[in-house]
Amino acid sequence: MNDIKENVIRAKSASITLSAVSTKTKDNALNAMANALDSFRNDIIKANAKDMDAAAKMKEKGELSDAMVKRLKVNDEKINGMILGVKDVVELKDPVGETISTMELDDDLILYQVRCPIGLLGVIFESRPDVVPQIMSLCLKSGNAVVFKGGKEASNTNKILFDVLSSAAYKAGIPEGSFCLMETRDDVSSILKMNDQIDLLIPRGSNEFVSYIQSNTKIPVLGHSAGICHVYVDEFADIEKALNVSLDSKIQYPAVCNAVETLLVNKKISKKFLPKMTDLFVKNGVEIRADKRAMDIIGDKKAKNAKGSDWDEEYNDMIISIRTVDSLDEAIEFINIHGSKHTDSIITENKINALRFVNLVDSSSVFVNASTRFSDGFRYGKGAEVGISTNKIHSRGPVGMEGLMIYKYIIIGNGHVVKDYAGKDAKSFTHRTLKKKFRI
Amino acid sequence: MNDIKENVIRAKSASITLSAVSTKTKDNALNAMANALDSFRNDIIKANAKDMDAAAKMKEKGELSDAMVKRLKVNDEKINGMILGVKDVVELKDPVGETISTMELDDDLILYQVRCPIGLLGVIFESRPDVVPQIMSLCLKSGNAVVFKGGKEASNTNKILFDVLSSAAYKAGIPEGSFCLMETRDDVSSILKMNDQIDLLIPRGSNEFVSYIQSNTKIPVLGHSAGICHVYVDEFADIEKALNVSLDSKIQYPAVCNAVETLLVNKKISKKFLPKMTDLFVKNGVEIRADKRAMDIIGDKKAKNAKGSDWDEEYNDMIISIRTVDSLDEAIEFINIHGSKHTDSIITENKINALRFVNLVDSSSVFVNASTRFSDGFRYGKGAEVGISTNKIHSRGPVGMEGLMIYKYIIIGNGHVVKDYAGKDAKSFTHRTLKKKFRI
Repeated sequence: MNDIKENVIRAKSASITLSAVSTKTKDNALNAMANALDSFRNDIIKANAKDMDAAAKMKEKGELSDAMVKRLKVNDEKINGMILGVKDVVELKDPVGETISTMELDDDLILYQVRCPIGLLGVIFESRPDVVPQIMSLCLKSGNAVVFKGGKEASNTNKILFDVLSSAAYKAGIPEGSFCLMETRDDVSSILKMNDQIDLLIPRGSNEFVSYIQSNTKIPVLGHSAGICHVYVDEFADIEKALNVSLDSKIQYPAVCNAVETLLVNKKISKKFLPKMTDLFVKNGVEIRADKRAMDIIGDKKAKNAKGSDWDEEYNDMIISIRTVDSLDEAIEFINIHGSKHTDSIITENKINALRFVNLVDSSSVFVNASTRFSDGFRYGKGAEVGISTNKIHSRGPVGMEGLMIYKYIIIGNGHVVKDYAGKDAKSFTHRTLKKKFRI
Repeated sequence: MNDIKENVIRAKSASITLSAVSTKTKDNALNAMANALDSFRNDIIKANAKDMDAAAKMKEKGELSDAMVKRLKVNDEKINGMILGVKDVVELKDPVGETISTMELDDDLILYQVRCPIGLLGVIFESRPDVVPQIMSLCLKSGNAVVFKGGKEASNTNKILFDVLSSAAYKAGIPEGSFCLMETRDDVSSILKMNDQIDLLIPRGSNEFVSYIQSNTKIPVLGHSAGICHVYVDEFADIEKALNVSLDSKIQYPAVCNAVETLLVNKKISKKFLPKMTDLFVKNGVEIRADKRAMDIIGDKKAKNAKGSDWDEEYNDMIISIRTVDSLDEAIEFINIHGSKHTDSIITENKINALRFVNLVDSSSVFVNASTRFSDGFRYGKGAEVGISTNKIHSRGPVGMEGLMIYKYIIIGNGHVVKDYAGKDAKSFTHRTLKKKFRI
């Protein structure tokens, strides 16, 4: 326990130095990290084989799902992906030190708002070792230190990835101790309590996992626990677009958070739309759970009756619930109650309805005539993704490196005192916006 | 309890409608609110008199401090201030709907990042009734609904201010229920539990009060519990500037969070600087608590020996602690450990030292040759201040209306599906930054 705390305090202290490391040193370190992944690929694959052996046994006992075992596997192709990922971050613009705004307060008294790293981040993830190079490179470029805690099932792989990457970074001039790996299960509960050291937690894993983290710490958490996305087919929808977008939103990759779970259909278009839609779903192996009015149209051969709980469930599977609504406003209200503020899409040719949907649906991503599956950092052009956030503050939706940044206010004066700006004969502030970038 | 929850759920639901109210309606409502304050000024002062009577009795029993009683008082002048404050908000630019960024993802597929309100805010404050018009007007303009809970000692004043302002706003077209006032002490603990409804808490009051709120809720909290600010007098300081800035930082208004509590002095300048500085402090009635090396210079007639606890104390009073440091880096490290990430200032003519201080002091405001007292929303040109935040995420330092905003991502497509951008023969994203403002 003391070791852990010491390491975290060391990382916190390193985060201060790291915040001022030059772009050149950081990019050199990233290139060194990419090279190290290449040089040590056999050792990494060997360490991963140990985890895979243990995982196979756990799978037999039913302790690990098939999906988790797949995500655990590291081969040459995955290492190539990691290397490319790290190199991509070299190309991202260094956000540290960027001047956000400049204001002259008075002669010789200038206020700058300058972008800076958040500080020390805690990244807790389940079996998916590629999180280590991805997050470590994003944090390094953005000047943040990181405490990692990975799943037990990936411990050998995480350990070697962490060692290879952090040694390469330190050799290239990154402050020693900037990265720290926690190895035991007890470490998680320690991390959750370190609200004096850790500035932001980023959990990556199942909904239950993220939800547990959110409920057991005072540290701000960036992420989402659920992805209950909707497609609403408006009375003014183009039927072809509605069919294509709904199908894609469901089946293009059903296991992920931005897949649609509930299809809302305006009653004025349901007779025309639902028979075609359900045929398409059935043909593609999607199970349908529908409300009574939809069932009357679909018939009980192709669909089951939805239960109350269906409207709040994230299937992450080839299942969709379908519900009839009387109006656009009913759809909006339903989404705001049953959705998870993740991604919701309207299919309509009516601009007024589209605008009302976009304005009033309280989700991080709201789409018009596009698949919910577009909700993703890579597709949004962010280069690399930290995760998707359903928070209402700081960062929302797909979060790139910008989500790891905050700012500080800097005033450069010349001996200025507040007493001169108070009382009678007070001097006035000029409050003039300047284009000038911060420099001393 | 049920009533409270119902009101909060109603406010949450009103927040959705409020988020899309036009600038014109909001500005009309703000003007109506300013007029209502003027029309009802006698009733407001009468209601305040009741609170003042009760407060006088509480003061006699020692249950209320002199400062709190002073802050409670509402007279014509204070009402004029409130009216001006509300009118100032009319002049602020409406941030809702502002396009932050636009990116073409592909032909006819455009991603917009658009500013929107956070949703429902909880404002909990101690006796200072001017918080009601100030926060209500800022929230209204930024499209956020609010749940208020004021101190018991100001209950009559808060109630009439709330009624006068919210009636005027609703009559002018603001959605009914957007504002809600909690009146009993039990209500606070209910508010703290409503993390499903309330998106952000803004506590205004004593350090203990804010600290209690931060420790007892899962809702994100915007604010600061302590204001331990430092002035560091570098070896390359201009003595005159050091004297003026240190004195102003301490005595210009010692009771507030941005007053300095600890003066750090480089040993290379202490013999030259400290005798003049301490004379000035003593002349102005400031009590000095100094470390041993400083005491050797000052002598024990003018100062007391500092205790260990002095370095972590927010005096909010005419007391200053003085400590000698060997180097700039020792000063930086000391501030990062003992400061509260609020505001810290270096006095130096050396640009390299100034830059190092500014880069490595992990505070929301870092100054060069300027009084810590400049750390304030009005002085920063924000027009109106929500509070000062020492958070590391979302908003930091003096927070204006921008701190009440978040964004949503909007995609306008034309039936686009992700399957076209996946697998072999995948289409590429164009990811072209556009200047275009959001519109449908």
